[in-house]
Amino acid sequence: MSDDYAAQIMEGSSRAAARLISWLEDEDARAYEWMPKLYPHTGRAYIIGITGAPGAGKSTLTDKLARTIRRNGLSIGIIAVDPSSPFTGGALLGDRVRMSELSNDPEIYIRSMATRGFLGGTAKATGDVVKVLDALGKDVIIIETVGVGQDEIDIIGIADTTCLVLVPGLGDAIQSMKAGIMEIADIFVINKADKPGADQLCGEVCSRLDIDSQIQAKAWTPPVDKAIAVEDIGIEELWQSIEGHRKHLQETGLFYEKRRNRTYQETLRMIHNELFRVVRESLQQDGRLDKAVERIMSREQDPYTLMREIVGEWLSIPKSQKEAYHEGTQS
Amino acid sequence: MSDDYAAQIMEGSSRAAARLISWLEDEDARAYEWMPKLYPHTGRAYIIGITGAPGAGKSTLTDKLARTIRRNGLSIGIIAVDPSSPFTGGALLGDRVRMSELSNDPEIYIRSMATRGFLGGTAKATGDVVKVLDALGKDVIIIETVGVGQDEIDIIGIADTTCLVLVPGLGDAIQSMKAGIMEIADIFVINKADKPGADQLCGEVCSRLDIDSQIQAKAWTPPVDKAIAVEDIGIEELWQSIEGHRKHLQETGLFYEKRRNRTYQETLRMIHNELFRVVRESLQQDGRLDKAVERIMSREQDPYTLMREIVGEWLSIPKSQKEAYHEGTQS
Repeated sequence: MSDDYAAQIMEGSSRAAARLISWLEDEDARAYEWMPKLYPHTGRAYIIGITGAPGAGKSTLTDKLARTIRRNGLSIGIIAVDPSSPFTGGALLGDRVRMSELSNDPEIYIRSMATRGFLGGTAKATGDVVKVLDALGKDVIIIETVGVGQDEIDIIGIADTTCLVLVPGLGDAIQSMKAGIMEIADIFVINKADKPGADQLCGEVCSRLDIDSQIQAKAWTPPVDKAIAVEDIGIEELWQSIEGHRKHLQETGLFYEKRRNRTYQETLRMIHNELFRVVRESLQQDGRLDKAVERIMSREQDPYTLMREIVGEWLSIPKSQKEAYHEGTQS
Repeated sequence: MSDDYAAQIMEGSSRAAARLISWLEDEDARAYEWMPKLYPHTGRAYIIGITGAPGAGKSTLTDKLARTIRRNGLSIGIIAVDPSSPFTGGALLGDRVRMSELSNDPEIYIRSMATRGFLGGTAKATGDVVKVLDALGKDVIIIETVGVGQDEIDIIGIADTTCLVLVPGLGDAIQSMKAGIMEIADIFVINKADKPGADQLCGEVCSRLDIDSQIQAKAWTPPVDKAIAVEDIGIEELWQSIEGHRKHLQETGLFYEKRRNRTYQETLRMIHNELFRVVRESLQQDGRLDKAVERIMSREQDPYTLMREIVGEWLSIPKSQKEAYHEGTQS
């Protein structure tokens, strides 16, 4: 084995890591030769999620937080899932210059996941990339993503500590609260705290958290931190809050529980994705789906009955179960 | 059969439709008794997608557009997938009052899909609900959704005509363009067109469309409509643009092609979802996944190898293929 990618990654080779991540993106079979070998060497990195609406300043905050973490002597992996993030090249020149400064630091590995090419969804791909950067030896991994949409909520589920970034004037505070994002946040960051409306936003979030804690007593009350990321104000305090949350998780045993839940969901998602990949490839190869779609379009066939037929054929479930499964199709 | 839900829905019973949609949400087996019976009676409704970032005024625009369409004598179904939409109760009182006016019209059926309970993803569920409202006899179905995230992009793929709503000052124009949403839009709506920056935003979008058309000649050049939805300005023009796009699709034969592609993706998604549902339920019932997750947590097992084992067991693929499939696990 001349190219032992697992060994190279564990020795810290960013090049080997980049190669493996590309294979993961392409659903190349080689990725799944090496991932099982890497897996025993994962679990050490601490994972931070940074989420919030477009325009909340997540990328700038991530940039400054990364610098603060580096000053504390820790190495960092950054995974940008936000398609509008400057890390993915989708931004203004000034941002990109700042980011390239970061990426010149060998202790920082930045990876964008902006492409839409992930058939299994970005959540699955992000989970795999986290493992690669973990095995690469990064102490802290930051995942930056917009907090809207199911896939994004799944991505945030990967993090140990989730920071929700809100800004005054964007009118997204109430909307975030309704969308269930509030429940996911371990730390609130009011960014652009020098703008009008920052105190009001802060008050809204605090009173909402107050009400929540009255309804249900909670082990952790999320701090509401103020920051002006562009001026590097409040970032050290944010890092202290993250450290505080990490200690809380570890002291209460919630850390293991949180990671166990994540592993459960992640394993289900992997099975989900792989099942679909095999079935999809088969259906596309033999042209059966194309023919069926023509009949569905002309209403000679319906997609629900077709679905039951194909699933019934594919699953090698015991006969008794199979009959029970097919009973549902008759009415 | 005392309760023939299919017949009742085809006769226009909103109550029967609501019942069926609830079963779809719950993945209740009864839903899949009736959906095949409804399917032959679908395909008549025209489907409009309204997408854009939170704060773009999508709900107000949907509200006004629905009233315009009603004045043209057509019946309407509205499906709100945006968790922050006033249709889903997540908004200010004034909005909710306006919406309840709409919902008093028997020719309008409003359905929110804001819950996170759809294990198969909201895109699959939205596709099913569209079919129910189509069979219910609605002439036009409007899907309102935030245009961020993979699931949301899949949802927009259901629409015949997609309207992307942009507003000045939200800074989302460039971001939308990068996120691939530009390519999906058939019509651009610059909402809040009386605000500063509207002309500039309009110019940005037009010049981007110009560049696109120079790179690749296109059969359809998306119109860029201005609107002030709260004052009902520009809505009739938007409806004319939608009608124009519909005629274009029908005259060029793209209508059939677009719906064929959608049916293909939708059928794949159904098979995907159903396969996973069966496998997930089995894994959860026999406690096997719980035990495996413990071993994965302690790094005695890796999730990739487990995934291959489980998928290999479940799929009754021919022996030769099975061997080929398992070969990939050895390195």
